[in-house]
Amino acid sequence: MSDNDGGTARRGRRGSGREARRARAASGQAAAAFIERKVPTYEVLGEEGLSLIERNADSLLQEIGIDFREDPEALEIWKAAGADVDGERVRFPRGLCRKLIQDSAPREFVQHARDAERSVRIGGDSLVCAPVYGPPFVRDLDKGRRYATIEDFRNFVKLAYASPGLHHSGGTVCEPVDLPVNKRHLDMVLAHMQLSDKPFMGSVTAPERAEDTVAMARILFGDDFVDPATGVEKTVVINLINANSPMVFDGTMLGAAKVYARANQACIISPFILAGAMSPVTVAGTATQILAEAMAGMAFVQLVRPGAPVVFGTFASSVSMQSGAPTFGSPEPSLVMYIAGTLARRLGVPFRSGGGLTGSKTPDAQAAYESANTLQAAALAGVNFMLHTAGWLEGGLAAGYEKFVLDADQATALPSLLGGIDLSENGQAMSALREVGPGNHFLGATHTQENFMSAFWRSELADNDSFEAWEAAGSQDSIVTANTRWKRLLAEYEPPALDPAIDEALREFVQGRKASMPDASY
Amino acid sequence: MSDNDGGTARRGRRGSGREARRARAASGQAAAAFIERKVPTYEVLGEEGLSLIERNADSLLQEIGIDFREDPEALEIWKAAGADVDGERVRFPRGLCRKLIQDSAPREFVQHARDAERSVRIGGDSLVCAPVYGPPFVRDLDKGRRYATIEDFRNFVKLAYASPGLHHSGGTVCEPVDLPVNKRHLDMVLAHMQLSDKPFMGSVTAPERAEDTVAMARILFGDDFVDPATGVEKTVVINLINANSPMVFDGTMLGAAKVYARANQACIISPFILAGAMSPVTVAGTATQILAEAMAGMAFVQLVRPGAPVVFGTFASSVSMQSGAPTFGSPEPSLVMYIAGTLARRLGVPFRSGGGLTGSKTPDAQAAYESANTLQAAALAGVNFMLHTAGWLEGGLAAGYEKFVLDADQATALPSLLGGIDLSENGQAMSALREVGPGNHFLGATHTQENFMSAFWRSELADNDSFEAWEAAGSQDSIVTANTRWKRLLAEYEPPALDPAIDEALREFVQGRKASMPDASY
Repeated sequence: MSDNDGGTARRGRRGSGREARRARAASGQAAAAFIERKVPTYEVLGEEGLSLIERNADSLLQEIGIDFREDPEALEIWKAAGADVDGERVRFPRGLCRKLIQDSAPREFVQHARDAERSVRIGGDSLVCAPVYGPPFVRDLDKGRRYATIEDFRNFVKLAYASPGLHHSGGTVCEPVDLPVNKRHLDMVLAHMQLSDKPFMGSVTAPERAEDTVAMARILFGDDFVDPATGVEKTVVINLINANSPMVFDGTMLGAAKVYARANQACIISPFILAGAMSPVTVAGTATQILAEAMAGMAFVQLVRPGAPVVFGTFASSVSMQSGAPTFGSPEPSLVMYIAGTLARRLGVPFRSGGGLTGSKTPDAQAAYESANTLQAAALAGVNFMLHTAGWLEGGLAAGYEKFVLDADQATALPSLLGGIDLSENGQAMSALREVGPGNHFLGATHTQENFMSAFWRSELADNDSFEAWEAAGSQDSIVTANTRWKRLLAEYEPPALDPAIDEALREFVQGRKASMPDASY
Repeated sequence: MSDNDGGTARRGRRGSGREARRARAASGQAAAAFIERKVPTYEVLGEEGLSLIERNADSLLQEIGIDFREDPEALEIWKAAGADVDGERVRFPRGLCRKLIQDSAPREFVQHARDAERSVRIGGDSLVCAPVYGPPFVRDLDKGRRYATIEDFRNFVKLAYASPGLHHSGGTVCEPVDLPVNKRHLDMVLAHMQLSDKPFMGSVTAPERAEDTVAMARILFGDDFVDPATGVEKTVVINLINANSPMVFDGTMLGAAKVYARANQACIISPFILAGAMSPVTVAGTATQILAEAMAGMAFVQLVRPGAPVVFGTFASSVSMQSGAPTFGSPEPSLVMYIAGTLARRLGVPFRSGGGLTGSKTPDAQAAYESANTLQAAALAGVNFMLHTAGWLEGGLAAGYEKFVLDADQATALPSLLGGIDLSENGQAMSALREVGPGNHFLGATHTQENFMSAFWRSELADNDSFEAWEAAGSQDSIVTANTRWKRLLAEYEPPALDPAIDEALREFVQGRKASMPDASY
């Protein structure tokens, strides 16, 4: 752990403590802040294959290079670091990016939440699940598909807050297109801060919007923004910096990355890949490109501020070679994810991928097959930060209300899947086997009685009743059960306590910024 | 490989050869006979945990023992082998079962199909996918849920034949309850033999029904039933021998197992576990019991006929500790499956588990999440024979037509998931990366053009169109797409060629057996 250490993760100045725990327990929100994986990751390649990909990524960086566009400062930074800069093309001596990362990037870090008990560790054996990011549309069973609004945005923040399977409030849970482009980030960040006490993501659509995010975080965290022991800013926002694949970082993303890095806030450097269109059609070729892009971006952040937290991100899908349409939940992107996870661990940085991805327009069987395929692969790939865990529909174009609660329910199974095998005497259960013996049943056994409360994960949405009971209850499709659930969660939602002075200061900041500029649609 | 070697798997006396290949290619049925896994299995426990479970299983076998019920001959066999027999309880010296298995059970074997190109290898790195087994009900979108009939049975055999994701015709794809219990096995086995050329499963509901199965197999395979090189019967039927968990084998199952073993036909020894009711509530305890039961059953088969093929089977689910209802697709049974797979490999026998399991009554999102969770785990657990790959609904009580084709479509992704990473120069795709470079796209690249046909798995049912195209086409839920598909597959079905003399002999055998006894409902 770096100076972003979690030494203070278990205490904090507001919203924590017994009272907050009681409040959460009462509202059913008691859950671990994040998942600690105690089972091995799944490794699809051995040393030979992995080092081949690493060598090829170094060749890509050295021979082909990466474009750092619309950002002269970035080019100066690379020149000073010893890279070969030709126009906007940057070529890297073999091993330079890796060395820059390994010299200063933290292997894991804590993203602090305003309630310290919600702070998450990102990296190592941890898994943090965050909701869908980016859709301009929303969908529900009642009103179908429509453009997202700030009301939808606030609803999804509330749903993430109410979902024990989600550890994070996410970022652009949907795009509130009813607000001006140059001001909506203020309402989005404000919603995360007011409506949830889970950690959240900042704006990356312009450097000044990143500045706004950091300014608001300083208000929210107050004196806590800087660690008194080290004098270093705590990491309280995590931010999605997409590569413009193939092999390009653009000025918007570089500008946001510099703002966040200089404030010691976390950058997820994420190649966004539809394989076959934005990367080669092969798994090994795609993994090579992802590694090269991610290394170039993470190394850049380390040059901007050594020690600033970075995450090796990847979003890999594939395109249908017949229609050009992106497809999700298919095997090749799972293989890419397994490999990328291993490459991130070899590099020694946290890994972001996964989620409940699907190309389906509704939460039907297709959506669930594809989402489960991605979620299972992400869990075993050792993902540390899982964006799009809940709500993703239609290749990311729509956030679904029913899909959100269905996915979030599935995510509650991950602690059991990843929690390891209890090999204690109680776990071995020889006493139960001896007590019950051949031909009897275990339901009444002492061991069963002592362990049944924690024995098995249980979905809150799945219907496991008999056919007759299910039919008598109305033969509900799971989408109908999900519809009832999200409405109940919103109806029962109560915001976490927030110091009124801070709340007021945040509102004032937002109003001031909005008043300072005319609306704009870019 | 044992004397059940696949040396003859690539030739056969009928239905094979160029003509059959052409016919299959024309009907879209060209597919590999089974999957060869080229990626590692997922290992959840290390040596310490595994040997602990193995020691505990030996303790269970030694101290608690297993009941072999309603079969005095089985008790005599065990006595002669050195076990301690007390009434129907058999206790085993430590290591006896393991030694019996390892001395003679084949590590892998070929199940021959009547078309040799359909023969499958079971064990090692192979994966054979078979349809759902056992449901007394069927369900489709048009007519809802109803008791299964022999017409449904024949339909599912046809659908499995038409599904490239399925390598096997299965056994009791549904229970034809419109036929007398004591005769329905004849029509079931006949359907597998006439309507499909994929390998199939035999009847296990009574020893004489197992005898009928073997007799029909002798007719179907004729001179091919015995390997001319060795004089040994070929394995042409595989059969599901469930333990009556906990720790009981009953007379019906033992009787069927003896018939099949003596004819060198394969027995899957499968503890059928709803954890918490039929095994302890812990993963380690359940895995211990499964190993003990499977070892006792497989060792028994080796005593009946050394070298007869056996498969370490397990079906593990868990029960809701709140309602007692079985649940599916949950994390603990996945962990049990990962461990059981490793235990089977350490023992050196093929492994059966997995499938597309769900408690849902319809192919909704719940069904697909749960089925995908099980299917993914089974793929990485190294399952060799996957029963219930397609069609399972409602905890196994119903076979669903739409569910069948949706699951079978998902199964077609497994060869890509398990086929390994191409690390050849073409797989590395450095030429594509060099040709395209930063900011361009790969769709037109030479490498893409050369590889796009085989590049990515593609679902035949998933809708990856744009929202607008999907809406214009009627906003179909995947259940509707699936409904169209199974009807088309049945409409286009054409039976594989079968020698008319054999067809006639099979019909005569069935008629003769039916005439030889009155109908009975047991």
